[in-house]
Amino acid sequence: MPKNNLLEKITALCKRRGFIFPSSGIYGGIAGIYDYGPLGVALAKNIKDLWWQDMVEKRTDMYGLDGSILMHPRSWEASGHVAGFTDPLVDCGDCQKRFRPDKLEGWKLKKDNQTGQFRVIKTGSLKCPVCGGRLIAKVRQFNVLMETSLGAIEGEKMKAYLKGESCQNIYLDFIDIVNSFSPKLPFGIAQIGKAFRNEITLGKFIFKTREFEQFDIEYFTRPQDSTRFYREWKKIRWDWYRKRLGLKEKNLRWRQHDEDERIFYAKDAWDIDYFYPWGWDELEGVHDRSDYDLTQHAKFSGKKLDIPDQETNQRIVPFIVECSGGVGRTMLAVLLDAYREEEGTNGIRVFLSLDVKIAPYKVAVFPLLANKAELIKKARSVYENLKDHFRVTWDEIGNIGKRYRRQDEAGTPWCVTIDYQSLKDEMVTVRDRDTMAQKRLAVARLADFFKKKLNS
Amino acid sequence: MPKNNLLEKITALCKRRGFIFPSSGIYGGIAGIYDYGPLGVALAKNIKDLWWQDMVEKRTDMYGLDGSILMHPRSWEASGHVAGFTDPLVDCGDCQKRFRPDKLEGWKLKKDNQTGQFRVIKTGSLKCPVCGGRLIAKVRQFNVLMETSLGAIEGEKMKAYLKGESCQNIYLDFIDIVNSFSPKLPFGIAQIGKAFRNEITLGKFIFKTREFEQFDIEYFTRPQDSTRFYREWKKIRWDWYRKRLGLKEKNLRWRQHDEDERIFYAKDAWDIDYFYPWGWDELEGVHDRSDYDLTQHAKFSGKKLDIPDQETNQRIVPFIVECSGGVGRTMLAVLLDAYREEEGTNGIRVFLSLDVKIAPYKVAVFPLLANKAELIKKARSVYENLKDHFRVTWDEIGNIGKRYRRQDEAGTPWCVTIDYQSLKDEMVTVRDRDTMAQKRLAVARLADFFKKKLNS
Repeated sequence: MPKNNLLEKITALCKRRGFIFPSSGIYGGIAGIYDYGPLGVALAKNIKDLWWQDMVEKRTDMYGLDGSILMHPRSWEASGHVAGFTDPLVDCGDCQKRFRPDKLEGWKLKKDNQTGQFRVIKTGSLKCPVCGGRLIAKVRQFNVLMETSLGAIEGEKMKAYLKGESCQNIYLDFIDIVNSFSPKLPFGIAQIGKAFRNEITLGKFIFKTREFEQFDIEYFTRPQDSTRFYREWKKIRWDWYRKRLGLKEKNLRWRQHDEDERIFYAKDAWDIDYFYPWGWDELEGVHDRSDYDLTQHAKFSGKKLDIPDQETNQRIVPFIVECSGGVGRTMLAVLLDAYREEEGTNGIRVFLSLDVKIAPYKVAVFPLLANKAELIKKARSVYENLKDHFRVTWDEIGNIGKRYRRQDEAGTPWCVTIDYQSLKDEMVTVRDRDTMAQKRLAVARLADFFKKKLNS
Repeated sequence: MPKNNLLEKITALCKRRGFIFPSSGIYGGIAGIYDYGPLGVALAKNIKDLWWQDMVEKRTDMYGLDGSILMHPRSWEASGHVAGFTDPLVDCGDCQKRFRPDKLEGWKLKKDNQTGQFRVIKTGSLKCPVCGGRLIAKVRQFNVLMETSLGAIEGEKMKAYLKGESCQNIYLDFIDIVNSFSPKLPFGIAQIGKAFRNEITLGKFIFKTREFEQFDIEYFTRPQDSTRFYREWKKIRWDWYRKRLGLKEKNLRWRQHDEDERIFYAKDAWDIDYFYPWGWDELEGVHDRSDYDLTQHAKFSGKKLDIPDQETNQRIVPFIVECSGGVGRTMLAVLLDAYREEEGTNGIRVFLSLDVKIAPYKVAVFPLLANKAELIKKARSVYENLKDHFRVTWDEIGNIGKRYRRQDEAGTPWCVTIDYQSLKDEMVTVRDRDTMAQKRLAVARLADFFKKKLNS
């Protein structure tokens, strides 16, 4: 399968089939903001529910959280985002294009160990890769936090920031959760939530957007245990993408942050990368963050954020292992991994070979003809019988060929057609998305047949 | 049970047990913004999942959506929010308290039929109900939309609003969904999403907040069918609160908007009210909105938002039946409905008699003692065996009495205790939240016992 135009093909399929639309599309859209349509919201929900079950519900050491988007401005001073959450740029003086220096040949980001800020240094060519023009060495920095005002009355307004990263609620509510649940170390707090950034460079579909959703785990350990649990979480998160989501091994890799890239307080930092159409790029960061976050918030809030170590009875500030992934990036990786083109007798067949666990619909039910009451009635009873067990869709638009094509692109694993023969023999045609194999099955056996497939 | 201090009791229980915390609490909090803790996120997820299953997944005529929070400013001009989304106020000149005129005796909101805006009129006493002072007749209006800037570079910034109501994405993406799915009228689009308002009056815990979550249904019909489907949706939504969520009949009522209150283009508007500790107030609005929303967006965007009527083949702008509820309000109603105080031998027992469908945890598993390896091991195997079927929590902190108290306040329907006898006879103690009845059950029968209870 060619990687050529793959991103464009996925983008077009997502709009055509109702996975993802540009937001505010009838008003011309807004760069870097997307809406999830009927299939997108189903796929995203399946991915998020799977993460939530595996990371929160089935573990005794994890606590869920859903924190607000609007947060106190002091939180972002403590986190360093107000001062330091910046994206250094390189501008072309001729074509006015902007570049991130760490993605631009001949330039490099270098950490200032004093301030934790990044500077830009030149290491080679200074030509603009787009027009060959003159790159401007004077690098500007910008704050990417989005700001708003609370309070309806002028003169009484209070500044607030939209979350720049979802994890911050976890640090702020850490002590509330400790007070409510008295958990023993190690334990974790997990959240799925939206965050907002005025990114400088957008594009690449839903890879980098101004409004995005993250899943975050902050796992709190005794300081001496953090390295051990860091290793453990690296394995858990890798296995989740590989085995639970079923992403292909060849499209996943570990990449360690080098000294210059790593934030100054982090003990170690690795990313799980995915092989996107433009090359390897981030899917999730798994970082060993020391006690920096809690210590900063303790300092800025004046509140004690240390807790008793139940083994020594000493009060300690726990170390944090962080696993922070993007819902949109995961969805993009899942779509890319599942995209198939197959030469057939009627031209190229496109289908999404999604893992059945996360496919938006598990089964599509078709009455052979949309204007025959007896077929509709029978198909309806099949639909009603299946829909209590798993997500089923109903499709009566166009001919069967068109419906297969639509469900192939929706990633629906099985289509069930009710025809005139069904009225006589109580059998229906079940068609498989990946193999296109068709077989006749008894209506009475359908639910069990699919349940077995879904649980295997 | 006394309604006295009920809201204060619920608020305290929510913080104590980890349902709901004030957001950014360590920085002093922000008025009208809350975080959902481990139990709150579980309860909210159960309510939202139930809504989503009933309103979207199990219907053939509904399409799900998850639209962005940041929307194009023109959307809010079209919707009338930029000009007209205002909260008229009455101020006290003495104590400086602010009041909503429609909630203040002796004042009334009156619609101006020309502009659709509301004016304030005096109908009686002009004394401040708090201090008896002089109420100021000059009424100011404020825009409650929250604004932010997109783009990191000064001079290139674009204004955007945070959604003032979640439903607007549905109008904007209406035509995208029609293009992707070719649905026949009537059909609906549903969304669960956050919205933001600079409310003038806050308070009443999570009833009115600056950041809140809504569930919205916009149901599109042929113009001549809207009254019929309006009646149908009124019944569906009432039954959902009453039968699916199990709210008490006596705490629910219908209230029709009177002429002065109803927005000028609405054909009819009713609210489902709940009897909160401060009296009857809104839970959900079910409104017959005519073709106003789509017509406005067609006008402001210059895009055609009419679709073919499959029966007449004429192009029409559908009418809309809207059902718009608040997740936070529903959660508050559920908590209030479930709150119980019972006189017992050890003082007052507090518990939440939550419907088992939405209880955060279905079962809590306790090893009798936390420091006995053989009890832990056995309890662990019970936990592991149950957790694949439904949400189970593990509790080993404090004595059994304290654990019961904690799980009672969490609304956990059943507690399972593993004691020394269990190691010999493979039986455990199952304790019922509402009756406190205890019985011994075989470990091998546990999963089926709870599954049966959960599905009854």
